[in-house]
Amino acid sequence: MAVYTEVSDVELEAFVAGYDIGPAVSCKGIAEGIENSNYLLQTEDRSYILTLYEKRVARDDLPFFLGLMDHLAARGIACPVPIRDATGEALRELCGRPAAMVSFLKGMWPRRVTTEHCAALGRAVAEMHLAGADFAMSRPNDLSLAGWKTLFATCRDRADEIQPGLAEEIADELVDLEARWPTETENGVIHADLFPDNVFFLGDRLSGLIDFYFACTDILAYDIAVCLNAWCFETDGDFNITKAKRLLAAYREVRPLAPAELAALPILARGAALRFLLTRLHDRLFPPEGVMVRHKDPLEYLRRLRFHRGIDGPGAYGLA
Amino acid sequence: MAVYTEVSDVELEAFVAGYDIGPAVSCKGIAEGIENSNYLLQTEDRSYILTLYEKRVARDDLPFFLGLMDHLAARGIACPVPIRDATGEALRELCGRPAAMVSFLKGMWPRRVTTEHCAALGRAVAEMHLAGADFAMSRPNDLSLAGWKTLFATCRDRADEIQPGLAEEIADELVDLEARWPTETENGVIHADLFPDNVFFLGDRLSGLIDFYFACTDILAYDIAVCLNAWCFETDGDFNITKAKRLLAAYREVRPLAPAELAALPILARGAALRFLLTRLHDRLFPPEGVMVRHKDPLEYLRRLRFHRGIDGPGAYGLA
Repeated sequence: MAVYTEVSDVELEAFVAGYDIGPAVSCKGIAEGIENSNYLLQTEDRSYILTLYEKRVARDDLPFFLGLMDHLAARGIACPVPIRDATGEALRELCGRPAAMVSFLKGMWPRRVTTEHCAALGRAVAEMHLAGADFAMSRPNDLSLAGWKTLFATCRDRADEIQPGLAEEIADELVDLEARWPTETENGVIHADLFPDNVFFLGDRLSGLIDFYFACTDILAYDIAVCLNAWCFETDGDFNITKAKRLLAAYREVRPLAPAELAALPILARGAALRFLLTRLHDRLFPPEGVMVRHKDPLEYLRRLRFHRGIDGPGAYGLA
Repeated sequence: MAVYTEVSDVELEAFVAGYDIGPAVSCKGIAEGIENSNYLLQTEDRSYILTLYEKRVARDDLPFFLGLMDHLAARGIACPVPIRDATGEALRELCGRPAAMVSFLKGMWPRRVTTEHCAALGRAVAEMHLAGADFAMSRPNDLSLAGWKTLFATCRDRADEIQPGLAEEIADELVDLEARWPTETENGVIHADLFPDNVFFLGDRLSGLIDFYFACTDILAYDIAVCLNAWCFETDGDFNITKAKRLLAAYREVRPLAPAELAALPILARGAALRFLLTRLHDRLFPPEGVMVRHKDPLEYLRRLRFHRGIDGPGAYGLA
């Protein structure tokens, strides 16, 4: 939940005049995305999302994110399309911040995830992975092993404030993940943050993927591992194997998973759980200044991490 | 800044089906209003504002607010119009809360107020006062003298934490205002919260008034007093007499002010300044639980209060 930067009507008018879209008739701060300021901007006949990139997003990464959306949209993936101004630029400046306008996607994210949602998600993630294969740019995942270690270093001394023993458990997990992290799995462009609030549906039909601001080049199956964590646990903490099975089956219909990818899933899922455990832990211990966010429980992801650590192999995800 | 209640897609679908507007294709929490949860809901061809009334708004007051918008809109005032469901009801329930949907108003609120904005505002307020004259319902202003005393009672012991001497200054002011509060001035329906963020413009043209959730029956000129406070001071704290003059002149072209109303303006303006001083002071000392609000400085209104106390008479507002 965001909206940090207040855009004045005067600045907005000048900004919008740079595009060939007509004047704005409405512009409202929306509670979407937690890293940036997002506005739903309306002209007489269309809606757009205007994003001001706040300091948690590196300016140098923006051409990758905007280029990726352009690339994926051109290959038929339902995602926001950057709008170019009269001079052909998609990345501009507003209120002293990098800013971009993208097309508006219809749909709502599912608050109550069904197995149908999971199947649609699996297909969409696989299609996105295929569509990203010939994307020319790359960007390292700064929230993989090395990034987790850096995050943990800032939290380690205070982690036990959240739960006694947490620091040690994370330290051990990091050692183990580093030793066992897969190296034989296919890399490509991943979304890396495919939580339900980044996936829109109209009824049961998936209408689009949004928020590519963690996208990077990494193990493709890591995206699936994020989805297993974010979509396949019930609110009571139980793992729903039917959801996982549908998600994986739908993915494999579009993009088959190699044996090495299947075998790596439990480790990747532990890594994905640790990633969200660490970022939530960090935000809890060091709440970002001036940012309005809903409290998210880091321990929810500790429980998911333990689940993935406790299973025998990828069969626990319903794989035949 | 709000959005407290998360509406699930399933609940939303059932709710929207009660109206004859077609299915929702998008519904986004917006950063508008601080008392309620507001969503911009879009169907294939229209936008609406969906409001869930949170606990700071009394359920019994809702028929007054919704009836007033209906009444004013029918008399040509640009304001949100409550949408009725298939059974004719405007006030419904969603996620265990009273909820209503109103028409969407184009426009943006002015972040940088100009004298033209003030003139347009003056006309619109006067037109709203005339249009409200035959509104059958009434609602006392619970944020007038009696309400201020109650608020102050809860803040008194801690007011000096904000500024030494503040408790005494407010106590003295309350005594003085009570002794001098006007009784000969015309009453009617007032908006009571006409801050710039509740007034939309398209260019220099005022396109609508929103957020009637403090509306009540009180001294008409008190609404002007609120506007003098909210629109006619510069960010450096200086009073802008040109803005006040334009606001008042435009108002009087539509609805002449009686001598008693003119004479009462400085007292009413002190009262209006005290009202916002007290609510800000209260929210500062007792931050509302779970509510995401921007910090607003109570002392800004202490300075405005002192300005109104220091003037000779209504001539200071540019009245001829």
